[in-house]
Amino acid sequence: MNYETFFQTELDKLAEEGNYRVFAELERHRGNFPKATHYRPEGKRPVTVWCSNDYLGMGQHPVVLNAMHEAVERYGAGAGGTRNISGTTHEHVLLERELADLHGKEGALLFNSGYMSNWASLTTLASKMPGCVVLSDEGNHASMIEGIRHSRCQKRIWKHNDLADLEAKLAELDPAQPKIIAFESVYSMDGDIAPIAAICDLAEQYGAMTYLDEVHAVGLYGPRGGGIAERDGVMDRVDLIEGTLGKAYGVIGGYITGSHALCDFIRSFASGFIFTTALPPAIAAAARVSINHLKTSSAERELHQRQVARVRRKLDIMGIPHMPNPSHIVPVMVGDPKKCKRISDRLLDAYGIYVQPINYPTVPKGTERLRITPSPMHTDEDIDHLLDSLGEMWAECALARGEQVA
Amino acid sequence: MNYETFFQTELDKLAEEGNYRVFAELERHRGNFPKATHYRPEGKRPVTVWCSNDYLGMGQHPVVLNAMHEAVERYGAGAGGTRNISGTTHEHVLLERELADLHGKEGALLFNSGYMSNWASLTTLASKMPGCVVLSDEGNHASMIEGIRHSRCQKRIWKHNDLADLEAKLAELDPAQPKIIAFESVYSMDGDIAPIAAICDLAEQYGAMTYLDEVHAVGLYGPRGGGIAERDGVMDRVDLIEGTLGKAYGVIGGYITGSHALCDFIRSFASGFIFTTALPPAIAAAARVSINHLKTSSAERELHQRQVARVRRKLDIMGIPHMPNPSHIVPVMVGDPKKCKRISDRLLDAYGIYVQPINYPTVPKGTERLRITPSPMHTDEDIDHLLDSLGEMWAECALARGEQVA
Repeated sequence: MNYETFFQTELDKLAEEGNYRVFAELERHRGNFPKATHYRPEGKRPVTVWCSNDYLGMGQHPVVLNAMHEAVERYGAGAGGTRNISGTTHEHVLLERELADLHGKEGALLFNSGYMSNWASLTTLASKMPGCVVLSDEGNHASMIEGIRHSRCQKRIWKHNDLADLEAKLAELDPAQPKIIAFESVYSMDGDIAPIAAICDLAEQYGAMTYLDEVHAVGLYGPRGGGIAERDGVMDRVDLIEGTLGKAYGVIGGYITGSHALCDFIRSFASGFIFTTALPPAIAAAARVSINHLKTSSAERELHQRQVARVRRKLDIMGIPHMPNPSHIVPVMVGDPKKCKRISDRLLDAYGIYVQPINYPTVPKGTERLRITPSPMHTDEDIDHLLDSLGEMWAECALARGEQVA
Repeated sequence: MNYETFFQTELDKLAEEGNYRVFAELERHRGNFPKATHYRPEGKRPVTVWCSNDYLGMGQHPVVLNAMHEAVERYGAGAGGTRNISGTTHEHVLLERELADLHGKEGALLFNSGYMSNWASLTTLASKMPGCVVLSDEGNHASMIEGIRHSRCQKRIWKHNDLADLEAKLAELDPAQPKIIAFESVYSMDGDIAPIAAICDLAEQYGAMTYLDEVHAVGLYGPRGGGIAERDGVMDRVDLIEGTLGKAYGVIGGYITGSHALCDFIRSFASGFIFTTALPPAIAAAARVSINHLKTSSAERELHQRQVARVRRKLDIMGIPHMPNPSHIVPVMVGDPKKCKRISDRLLDAYGIYVQPINYPTVPKGTERLRITPSPMHTDEDIDHLLDSLGEMWAECALARGEQVA
């Protein structure tokens, strides 16, 4: 077999399908988010980023950066080992305490990414509990799907946010069988929100554990940024809450929180936790300060919601279709992969606006979109420029408009 | 099912087997490695760390820390997105170029950890190539084993570093079948080194790809720190070289290098690469500067080898058994799990020496050991203190000594 030819052939197929990805090379400017420099073969150009998951701009907040600088000066760059072999530092312990407190849980466990926290935790739980079945929302993130798959447990996929379908699937199972209901609070691509309390009702009724991914909600919802479960007052009813330090908190890393025994179980058995170098202490310190700040400050969340609402209102005024949802994610619907890519390219080249096109297989065919994430740093002028530009592109691409709201 | 009871029962079993891990909580001091503070319930105490994988102390090197500070000031804390959605920064691109150059390859791809680079790359290669079989050295790291397992491909485990067994297994396979020989250069727990050139000979003869994990070798071997393959002059014969930024380079992250098509293939298909937030630009900047420094400076490598040799010579003089190997890893053999744990505890409590005990299942029963990793920052006095302390523990635990070399 000629390996090179095989790789190239597969890449060519991807390109023919329109799914070959070219990464935009950026340089964000601390103190000037969401402005960035776009590196292109022809030279550098200024752009405004409209698709970052650093939702609140905490990645440039002075308290976060100061904590990072101070920790680098104090402890150096890396952790120097796995958590078990010299890599557990005081900063890791403090961060895990902060995370447990954030979600009102006994314990927390830090991972190198949200992907790893989902993959390693679901794999460990589902493979170690004899006869375990995972009931997985069909909209769940790749990291959860891969974790469930790797465990080789039984699984049932339930219709997205559909309580009746979840209950029907729970009712079919042996009551004695260990069960995990795995779902998210805010779904990344549609921005819709799960009925957490009602899912907990079913979990209690049928004796299932609840596994909730709050990566697109922590820092953003709830009076202390504990996520949708905090906002809804149901954190104590969810067995395991998973989150990230790489989106609203502006740094990197993933985590789970839950009972002492649950966290200790995953700590003790998860290959993806045990056999990997710990996050740098400076990352842990920066993340802790970010969480702590957003526990007491709601200003970022309020301005965030204001700018999200402003973008939505302007879209409505112009009749540009966007998927209605109760979150901060604004999916502007194009419904055609080529036009979606073309609008994104033109926005970047002609208008200095960077928003990545989201095509199949990330979203179903026919629902191609621009996933816009307004932040507190986007000014009203930024929003006006985005909307004017989208309006011109809508005309240029002859895309349909809805009723224009006055 | 009572989930809490299940978790606690499993943890109790682990404790009964002597395999329950308690993490040592440390605080390393920048500018004063390998000294650290050990946090204990009774209070804090100074210790010397003897089991870090920050092998050269690059985690406190001023050029690395300056790069990290500057990048934090310039770009902020996190990357703000996946590589495809706003998370590719100029620093990521520069680091991947530096990595490709380090190994003399066309391309490189950055991951959030060495674990993820192995898991995602092997899973992707082995699952996408139809009928692929992975020939895996029996000593391979957990991340490689899990990656192979997740791909659900065929696999053949060959005896550790045994060319005859590898050849016998290759000869049994269909010549047309895609094959990956997966192995490491320096094995973490025994410190022995693979015969890379001879493995490449077999790979060429039988039409297999070579997948080489150099995580315990990059930065440490070869005139530019390219690892054992560079030292042996065979980098161009290995198809994929995987490495880490979290050990000798002192930061965090993993990577692969190889042909353009190979790296682009994994970039385009690996779930664990695509669906995860990119490393912070400051981490990328720090890692790049560390690699660059060790490409031209051999002083750290030379002093490292000197201190490793000094520890070995002193062990020989005292007749304390250690596994002979040609690397920087010094496995001091205890051969009993309880004594191994006891020596480690006593060294920490009574002598201010931190070296983690390595017991089953990390190593086979009867080969329990203290895995000692001397560094350029360990002074001759540190080495004397370690050896004196080990000598006292050997007497206290009535452990056998070998012939004492004059």
